[in-house]
Amino acid sequence: MSLLVVGTLAYDTVETPSGRAEDVLGGAATYCSIAASFFVPVRLVGVVGEDFRPEDRTLLADKGVMLDGLHQAPGRSFRWSGKYVDDLNVAETVDTQLNVLEGWEPTVPEEFRNSRFVFLANSPPALQAKVLDQVDEGAFKVMDTMNLWIEQTWDDLHALLPRVDMLICNDREALALGEDHSLIRAGRKLLSKGPGVVIVKKGEHGAFLWSREFFYALPAYPLEHVVDPTGAGDTFAGGVMGSLASAGQVSERELRRAMIHGSVLASFNVEDFSLNRMQQITRSDIDARYREFLRFTAHP
Amino acid sequence: MSLLVVGTLAYDTVETPSGRAEDVLGGAATYCSIAASFFVPVRLVGVVGEDFRPEDRTLLADKGVMLDGLHQAPGRSFRWSGKYVDDLNVAETVDTQLNVLEGWEPTVPEEFRNSRFVFLANSPPALQAKVLDQVDEGAFKVMDTMNLWIEQTWDDLHALLPRVDMLICNDREALALGEDHSLIRAGRKLLSKGPGVVIVKKGEHGAFLWSREFFYALPAYPLEHVVDPTGAGDTFAGGVMGSLASAGQVSERELRRAMIHGSVLASFNVEDFSLNRMQQITRSDIDARYREFLRFTAHP
Repeated sequence: MSLLVVGTLAYDTVETPSGRAEDVLGGAATYCSIAASFFVPVRLVGVVGEDFRPEDRTLLADKGVMLDGLHQAPGRSFRWSGKYVDDLNVAETVDTQLNVLEGWEPTVPEEFRNSRFVFLANSPPALQAKVLDQVDEGAFKVMDTMNLWIEQTWDDLHALLPRVDMLICNDREALALGEDHSLIRAGRKLLSKGPGVVIVKKGEHGAFLWSREFFYALPAYPLEHVVDPTGAGDTFAGGVMGSLASAGQVSERELRRAMIHGSVLASFNVEDFSLNRMQQITRSDIDARYREFLRFTAHP
Repeated sequence: MSLLVVGTLAYDTVETPSGRAEDVLGGAATYCSIAASFFVPVRLVGVVGEDFRPEDRTLLADKGVMLDGLHQAPGRSFRWSGKYVDDLNVAETVDTQLNVLEGWEPTVPEEFRNSRFVFLANSPPALQAKVLDQVDEGAFKVMDTMNLWIEQTWDDLHALLPRVDMLICNDREALALGEDHSLIRAGRKLLSKGPGVVIVKKGEHGAFLWSREFFYALPAYPLEHVVDPTGAGDTFAGGVMGSLASAGQVSERELRRAMIHGSVLASFNVEDFSLNRMQQITRSDIDARYREFLRFTAHP
């Protein structure tokens, strides 16, 4: 089924213990779209600057990402620069240049408005709300967020939460938004704020899922070598969304499958900088690692 | 099958965000024995002082812990005092008084020497080696350790590792002993140091198991409220050892079952101070939480 992804595309400069990558393709919507593209064609809405490289456009298009909603604005693309020092789970932001993001308001092309699955990557909640105004009420609507919006736009965020069907965020965000120091309590409290499903990403420690019907916990795929964690969370979300959209339904079984797909996609993504690893793998690599995942978490 | 547990009994003074408990029963061998006692009778070897309370002896005996190897020495029992401030995964030691532990050398009673399963709770490796000299070579021998011994008695520890069948330690210890900053690589490296099975406890993040045949990862039981994490790791080890000893074999299936039993026992233990919670639960509480564990980690 159709999947719409709305969010940022960026050029990132990243430093990790494994090395450095300069001005490489990144952005939440980019990572999410590429991950989801292994399951379904992706409808992307975002903004880039005049400096957006033709080869990056080609990369997206070749993966089946539809670019009719990719607006090119005067000026430079959004830029993020960060480094990972001791803890590969936490990026230290060195610099952020909003550039074309400043003042941008997403417009969902007419032909994308009937999308059955909608993912709002991390953005100001007021902006995410404007996207919801443009899509079908019956779509399965999912949002991510970040600590900046939890701190600065608490009310906007709480107006938005009842309008989405699922929230995906990381553990630090869940604790802040749930106002609790226990992640288990925080997750349950997030459910009461509106979304019927809450997924919390814990990096190398796996992920949790709460719904009104069940709780699901899974460890992360055990990687011996992480090169660059940038985009892991967005790639996880893309795997989840692609898996659900491809199934065309949001049952307990499909949510569990989606969580494993998210973990598998994220595990590939961190094996190299930017989207390098995602360009090498195929669906059969994903399926093989999915089966491996089932083996090492198999019940007695 | 018969299980021997050798290690410390203590009186602990513990402060956590939930409160404070003074001079309460603790010690690695105590926690481990009580946890294992839900599966098999436990043969305990340890030392206490003249101040060891009769009611604590009764508590152990009532749980089916055989006390023929519990030596009472002149002086006071081993005392540990610690607190948990922000991170419930890490105890800050306030005070340690070795007391009767000083100069103690464990003697395994003749009738315990044929034990089929042997657990060496955290102790100086030279002391753990002396226990191995007294037990049957064919027993399934398991050891725990701590950073102090990794730092101070590296050679003793490396002489001991090839003599045991399984190592159980926590993530920080695994990284130090494996000399790696990746837990996944460290776990594999520990296997090459001798033991055929390595279990790494990650507190609220679950546990990993490596063997030469398979890898197993599981999340922790999702607890909303942790009162006191003291003894969680030893209780986990006790659940693992009790489960294996009760099965009487160390197959892949039984190791996976043992890991879940360890997690379940530890999850009960942290719900109250000292061994309070362990005195309330029954085997059927354990079995119920085991089934719950299977549900929330069930595959799609």
